Amino acid sequence: MEKERLIVIGGDAAGMSAASKAKREDPDLDVLVFEKQEYVSFGLCGLPYYISGEVEKLDDLIAMDPKAFQEKRGIDVRTEHEVLDIHPEERSVVLENEEGEKLERSYDKLLIATGAYAIIPPLKNVGLENIFTLHWLDDGKEIKKYVESKKPDRVVLTAGYIGLEMAEAFGKLGLDVTVLAKDEKVLPMIDEEIAETVKEELEKNNVDFKKNSEITGFEGDKDGKVRKVKTKNGEVETDFVLLGVGVKPSSELAEKAGIEIGKTGGILVDEKMETNIKNIYAAGDCVESRHILTGEGVNIPLGDTANRQGRTAGINISGGNATFLGILGTAITKIFDLAVARTGLSENEAKKSEFDYTSVKIDAPSRAFYYPGGSKITVKMIIEENSGRLLGTQMAGKEGVSQRIDVAASLINYKSTIEEIQNLDLAYAPPYSPAWDPLQTAAKVASSKIGSD
Amino acid sequence: MEKERLIVIGGDAAGMSAASKAKREDPDLDVLVFEKQEYVSFGLCGLPYYISGEVEKLDDLIAMDPKAFQEKRGIDVRTEHEVLDIHPEERSVVLENEEGEKLERSYDKLLIATGAYAIIPPLKNVGLENIFTLHWLDDGKEIKKYVESKKPDRVVLTAGYIGLEMAEAFGKLGLDVTVLAKDEKVLPMIDEEIAETVKEELEKNNVDFKKNSEITGFEGDKDGKVRKVKTKNGEVETDFVLLGVGVKPSSELAEKAGIEIGKTGGILVDEKMETNIKNIYAAGDCVESRHILTGEGVNIPLGDTANRQGRTAGINISGGNATFLGILGTAITKIFDLAVARTGLSENEAKKSEFDYTSVKIDAPSRAFYYPGGSKITVKMIIEENSGRLLGTQMAGKEGVSQRIDVAASLINYKSTIEEIQNLDLAYAPPYSPAWDPLQTAAKVASSKIGSD
Repeated sequence: MEKERLIVIGGDAAGMSAASKAKREDPDLDVLVFEKQEYVSFGLCGLPYYISGEVEKLDDLIAMDPKAFQEKRGIDVRTEHEVLDIHPEERSVVLENEEGEKLERSYDKLLIATGAYAIIPPLKNVGLENIFTLHWLDDGKEIKKYVESKKPDRVVLTAGYIGLEMAEAFGKLGLDVTVLAKDEKVLPMIDEEIAETVKEELEKNNVDFKKNSEITGFEGDKDGKVRKVKTKNGEVETDFVLLGVGVKPSSELAEKAGIEIGKTGGILVDEKMETNIKNIYAAGDCVESRHILTGEGVNIPLGDTANRQGRTAGINISGGNATFLGILGTAITKIFDLAVARTGLSENEAKKSEFDYTSVKIDAPSRAFYYPGGSKITVKMIIEENSGRLLGTQMAGKEGVSQRIDVAASLINYKSTIEEIQNLDLAYAPPYSPAWDPLQTAAKVASSKIGSD
Repeated sequence: MEKERLIVIGGDAAGMSAASKAKREDPDLDVLVFEKQEYVSFGLCGLPYYISGEVEKLDDLIAMDPKAFQEKRGIDVRTEHEVLDIHPEERSVVLENEEGEKLERSYDKLLIATGAYAIIPPLKNVGLENIFTLHWLDDGKEIKKYVESKKPDRVVLTAGYIGLEMAEAFGKLGLDVTVLAKDEKVLPMIDEEIAETVKEELEKNNVDFKKNSEITGFEGDKDGKVRKVKTKNGEVETDFVLLGVGVKPSSELAEKAGIEIGKTGGILVDEKMETNIKNIYAAGDCVESRHILTGEGVNIPLGDTANRQGRTAGINISGGNATFLGILGTAITKIFDLAVARTGLSENEAKKSEFDYTSVKIDAPSRAFYYPGGSKITVKMIIEENSGRLLGTQMAGKEGVSQRIDVAASLINYKSTIEEIQNLDLAYAPPYSPAWDPLQTAAKVASSKIGSD
């Protein structure tokens, strides 16, 4: 009897998690991964730290190379192999290898993990030289090369996650940094109160923050290099622009094969990570996930979600039974010395989804009042009015944010109420938190506000 | 109509939380607090940091003085007033004021928040000079004075929380520190694997750790000062001993008044924090709490538990409706650079309570593999065999422990399974965690072990 074969399209977090898990659960499975780039298993989230020099070599971002996957896990990984077509009826894929040859390979199970790509907005002169996006390793390589060789004085960034992480990176390199926000505030995924803290941190680090400055186009010099950014609020001279206006799921290959696509542009999958075509699974940035609180389809590309979805797909592909129940929109980012994090619904999202909610915002110390070295944590909570259920939490602070947001994520996941939160047995010692944890203080304030005690 | 009166016996965390909450909810309530010492609202957990000098003055440990309670919150606080008797039938208490006068005061509601006291084991010559316990501010004051004036060369400590926190404090002061453990390991509340990490940290910091060295008695010099500690494993010369062998609930006053006492020696209360005598409540270190997982009565004296219980009592005293559902035994301590934390059941506790359990222990990085500055986190999980439910978690590490233990506490509180934990949407960014959170990695390893996927 011939071995069953799993073909995986795309060799980053979701693809390699699925391949590894499926092979581990079913060692007889023939696992073949096609990746169109030169690398697999790359830490895209580490690119800002490569550019800043905190991570020395691009290779440092690669967790495992194809040879190691073969030797340690028995997975056949082919880089520079681009899948061009999926033929569900024949259960085969058509691909082009590194020499440009077209090949066809058959599968029993297929996993699509094609990721996402950076959106390039259709702005005037967006094709000028030195206007970058940052999504793939190659983008990181190019930007690093440009910065080292051309030594730009002033860089212009946008106000999302990537833009602000790069503000830190460029700030560390000593460049003049300008951040352009579309509206009043940074980071669309967080609310005003937390964004304000972030803005203060940017200004403290000499970042020139310009609000209401949506980019409308660019002007170049005679060599075709960017020279000016035009915005709704004036112009900025620069010789470097990084556009971080979001990503789109790479779902074209799937769509061409007749696989259903959701309204976010991501591939539709069920709780097993299977698409509408039997034996074809999808995972990672290319799929549409379900938001646990709203039930809506969302596409929030993150490496940890990709890992979890890949693992779920891998278990099901190898005959097991696992479900992926959705996401909460949990995220964290480091902006200079500040950790900024969110989980669940922001106030805007709660409003849009028509929840009856109330919100509270508090400042709390990160340590016992007498223990030296503490700093301020700002916490915002969104709470459902009648039930008292926690719907969302946002935080910013120099310490005590990174795992505390995971406490909030866990509480939201289990439909915890502000009454229950006040009763939780959390850990207390003077160097690590105040005796009332900031989450409990926020819950207390919320209780007083909605009169639940 | 005369005002209702609440009398609170004891002015630390539980007492002042209850007093403050009751007064806030019912501003007409006459709130009177009797505290036998000179201070109220003192941060006992901060004493090691006062002795080490990290906290400058003893006053820094006091959150609010009696005058401030009167002026800001309308609470009448009487220090150096010791309650000698409770007369439930007359609804009154008999007390002695700072001048030694006996007074009687009547109450409508009474809260007992008398705390706990340090156990002095009945060892030979335990009454010698320079053998200390550390529980009250005055103990801290005396130890500080002794260390500063007598400049001991070598101090001998026990291997519980207080002993190890003081090992750090004395280490910072440059003293030779010996820690005596009763059995093989430090910290009775954690298991062997985590205790091992703590032992390494002690040794790295030149602490002389002696196992199987239960103290059997002391020898003094002709002035009645301690000179030698005798143990089951030889003798240690020293001129300073700190005994941290646990505390006992101060429940004698309650017992005398006919209030029921539990098998741990703590006052028995219901979910409203009310004792068997109507209108008499109790909260904090003096009560017996229910362990959420075992349903057993336990007495684990901690400031944050006292705050929560006090608040619950305060709400009920003022006519509201709040419940305190129990504790999980969550705790954290700092030992030199290491954070050590636990929640739920340890392996020994799971065994004793006859759970069918399995356990896993992993080492995980605190940051993404390529992000500089990370360190190791050791995680141990105790999981119920059939259900896959998380029963307990212990952790040790230089960073990423303090709020991560609260994630585990939240998960245990909501009866989370290792399958669910792997699916949780936790926050990921390279500076703050690996893409698979260490808790999720431990859950994955546990899944493989018990074959749940």
